[in-house]
Amino acid sequence: MGKELLGKLEWRVNVPDGTSDRLEPEFGPVLKVWLGLKSLLEGFIRKIWKFFKKAWDIGVAEPKKVIHGVKVGLCISIVSLFYYMRPLYEGVAGSRTMWAIMTVVVVFESTIGSTLYKCINRVTATFLAGSLGVGVHWVASHSGENLEHVILGISVFLLASAATFSRFIPSIKARFDYGAMIFVLTFSLISVSYREKKLLEFACQRLSTIVIGTSLCIFISMLFCPIWAGTELHQLICRNFEKLAYSLDEIVTEYFKDEKTLKASDENCNKRILGYKCVLNSKATEESMANLARWEPAHGRFNFRHPWKQYLKTGASMRDCAYCIETLYSCVNSEIRAPPHLKKHLKNMCMRLRSTSSIVLEELGITMKTMTKSATIDILVAEMNFAVQELKSALNSLPDHVLTSQSSTLDASEDVEKIATTPFTEILPLTTLVYLLIENATKIERIVKAVDELAALAEFKPVADKKTIYRQSMVKLTPASNQDV
Amino acid sequence: MGKELLGKLEWRVNVPDGTSDRLEPEFGPVLKVWLGLKSLLEGFIRKIWKFFKKAWDIGVAEPKKVIHGVKVGLCISIVSLFYYMRPLYEGVAGSRTMWAIMTVVVVFESTIGSTLYKCINRVTATFLAGSLGVGVHWVASHSGENLEHVILGISVFLLASAATFSRFIPSIKARFDYGAMIFVLTFSLISVSYREKKLLEFACQRLSTIVIGTSLCIFISMLFCPIWAGTELHQLICRNFEKLAYSLDEIVTEYFKDEKTLKASDENCNKRILGYKCVLNSKATEESMANLARWEPAHGRFNFRHPWKQYLKTGASMRDCAYCIETLYSCVNSEIRAPPHLKKHLKNMCMRLRSTSSIVLEELGITMKTMTKSATIDILVAEMNFAVQELKSALNSLPDHVLTSQSSTLDASEDVEKIATTPFTEILPLTTLVYLLIENATKIERIVKAVDELAALAEFKPVADKKTIYRQSMVKLTPASNQDV
Repeated sequence: MGKELLGKLEWRVNVPDGTSDRLEPEFGPVLKVWLGLKSLLEGFIRKIWKFFKKAWDIGVAEPKKVIHGVKVGLCISIVSLFYYMRPLYEGVAGSRTMWAIMTVVVVFESTIGSTLYKCINRVTATFLAGSLGVGVHWVASHSGENLEHVILGISVFLLASAATFSRFIPSIKARFDYGAMIFVLTFSLISVSYREKKLLEFACQRLSTIVIGTSLCIFISMLFCPIWAGTELHQLICRNFEKLAYSLDEIVTEYFKDEKTLKASDENCNKRILGYKCVLNSKATEESMANLARWEPAHGRFNFRHPWKQYLKTGASMRDCAYCIETLYSCVNSEIRAPPHLKKHLKNMCMRLRSTSSIVLEELGITMKTMTKSATIDILVAEMNFAVQELKSALNSLPDHVLTSQSSTLDASEDVEKIATTPFTEILPLTTLVYLLIENATKIERIVKAVDELAALAEFKPVADKKTIYRQSMVKLTPASNQDV
Repeated sequence: MGKELLGKLEWRVNVPDGTSDRLEPEFGPVLKVWLGLKSLLEGFIRKIWKFFKKAWDIGVAEPKKVIHGVKVGLCISIVSLFYYMRPLYEGVAGSRTMWAIMTVVVVFESTIGSTLYKCINRVTATFLAGSLGVGVHWVASHSGENLEHVILGISVFLLASAATFSRFIPSIKARFDYGAMIFVLTFSLISVSYREKKLLEFACQRLSTIVIGTSLCIFISMLFCPIWAGTELHQLICRNFEKLAYSLDEIVTEYFKDEKTLKASDENCNKRILGYKCVLNSKATEESMANLARWEPAHGRFNFRHPWKQYLKTGASMRDCAYCIETLYSCVNSEIRAPPHLKKHLKNMCMRLRSTSSIVLEELGITMKTMTKSATIDILVAEMNFAVQELKSALNSLPDHVLTSQSSTLDASEDVEKIATTPFTEILPLTTLVYLLIENATKIERIVKAVDELAALAEFKPVADKKTIYRQSMVKLTPASNQDV
């Protein structure tokens, strides 16, 4: 008799005494081991498959990562080709290949800024450590057989300790971290090889192969699908503006949505609402990008001395805004629901402030994206501030509202004047939301200031004619109260 | 006539016609250059001096950074000593020194977790790439003179591209980023040196020297003043608890301070108030520490499989709390001052909630620090929740309060009942502060949950007897309303 139990096929035999025995399949030990191995193998293959699936997804989502891989492969192949005819271990000359390949593998990074930073650090540090090493060698070799080792040993110890410690100093860490490491490496290597004649040759060789390797890296990374750290940083900031605007928009809308439709919002939308969380966590990325962008030459719309530091200031003020939105979101998720009549009283003003705020954020995003000074940002900010004022006055009429709406339901014939008030705790999330919206407007103004400074420093062009018309028509489309301002 | 103008000494001569001529000191071109050089040199020396001053300060503040430098110097000196008798370029054997020194310089990191991660990655990747390289070589050398180069070239290109791309996959990046690089490096190096006999020797040599270098690194980093990534992470979390508690305490106190004493708070205190900002920005540090701590063996109070991932969860919930405190701080800094009578009405309850909240945070800090389950945390949380309830009821009596306090000043004989209300915008920061304090309590409860999970996973000991007595006396000291709960 076959019986399917919880999706598992089981065989039972009815025994004459009325009970039924389960027939367990009997496996020999060999079969058991085989089955165990099989399931292990299947699990392994499934894991590998999942891994490749993920890798494929990443490759499809960000093709530039695949391109970077191909570029590195190409670069290493070219270096190998260079030296293919001269195998690695034919004495001293052969070691050239090794240094060149090593340089390419270690130095080739995904962004040009990062590659340049490593290249320049590597070449400079090798040169400095090489000269110093040869100098110390000269001193040591002229101080007698016994002192020689002592001088070399002490100099290695002192310089290695000092250079390693210097990597903890912020100004060194930001710009010369890699250089300090290479300095220690080169100096130690040179101090170990203590016959001066070959030494100079060795130092020159190491420098020349490193120069070959680095120039090839720079050449290939700039020539094929270049990825600039500066551009990445710029795009990150632009994207973050969009995310902030979208999150602010959706979170406030969500709060004032009818209860019925609240659950209808799909998951995809929910994910996009949380876009502001990217802004919360972007500090480390922004800092490293800005650090690397400094090494990059002029490219695209960015000059050599593009004010990357100002991007960090802009990013910081955007994060302030994101903190505000984070708290805003917790208000929206609060279990306490404000009484509908109060919500209704404030809804229009809140929605108005929300839309003016997010329009300002979007406009800032466009300013950054197009790198042109916005012609309408002042008007938009004024509109936002007007919405703040309107919301404030709507709010000031709230205390009466809290009372009257409820007292109207009371029996008018009652003698004692009892005024039933809405418990304050119930309106707390609503008032907090209002406060945070107003606070957020101040923070957005600070972002506007930061972007203005950036525009001045980076010499953003004033807006083009066509653009102005488009923007102005946009302003007209929104039923703005410009005249009132 | 000497005349000091804006702190600059100037010589004037009165000419007979009544005007005065300024006497400009005349310098020859040589003197000018000399003065220019001198000021340049002085500036340079001042900069260097400043740099050394800063380095000194860092060294004094964190001696373990200096110790790390000394350890690296020591390790390199030992490796150099090892091979001092066998100079670098005596054919193949000499290259051993180089690999060992290189390994030490590249692999020796400040924390043991980081050193182990690099060591294990380096050895494994070298072994894998070496075996694969020798295998590919064998295949290539058996496929004829022409095909050999093609096979080698293609294999280098493909493997280098794939391994480089794999470094973008999060699971690889977190654990094997360095290994992938070393894999590419070793494989490329082996494929270039294409005579099989020396090849095996070369591969073995590279592996053996790397093993020597790595074991020395591990030995020294563990033996002298070890710095464990796990311990650092643990201490970071403990410190962050203290910072959160202090910030919360001070910020709320600052808000309810009298206006007169407000400005009196000194700068040092202001700096400590901003301690929560460290928590805001600690995500990247926590993640990298937790990643590295996984590589560490059992040490101190931490087992090999200590739940480092749970630290990240705890850290995330602490950050949520810090976001709340950030907004709280903006309320305190708001220009709108709530009317004093309202402030007074809520002050006691707010201060009570503040102190119970920060006591919970402190208790969590102690739980983490001592790694013992707290006996009183439940009582403390209950107290905090009771304070929330009290604050809520105080709040619910606020609407009457808003009215009555003002209406009492009205003329009683007036016919039309006009109730003068405090404008709502004025009490907005106050109500937001209250809301955020209540919200913060929920977030603290979430932290308590995360720490509880951590305590269960890490098998924290139950509190010791002596400890319990101490804690209980602490509870008694605070005039708690335990009976009411």
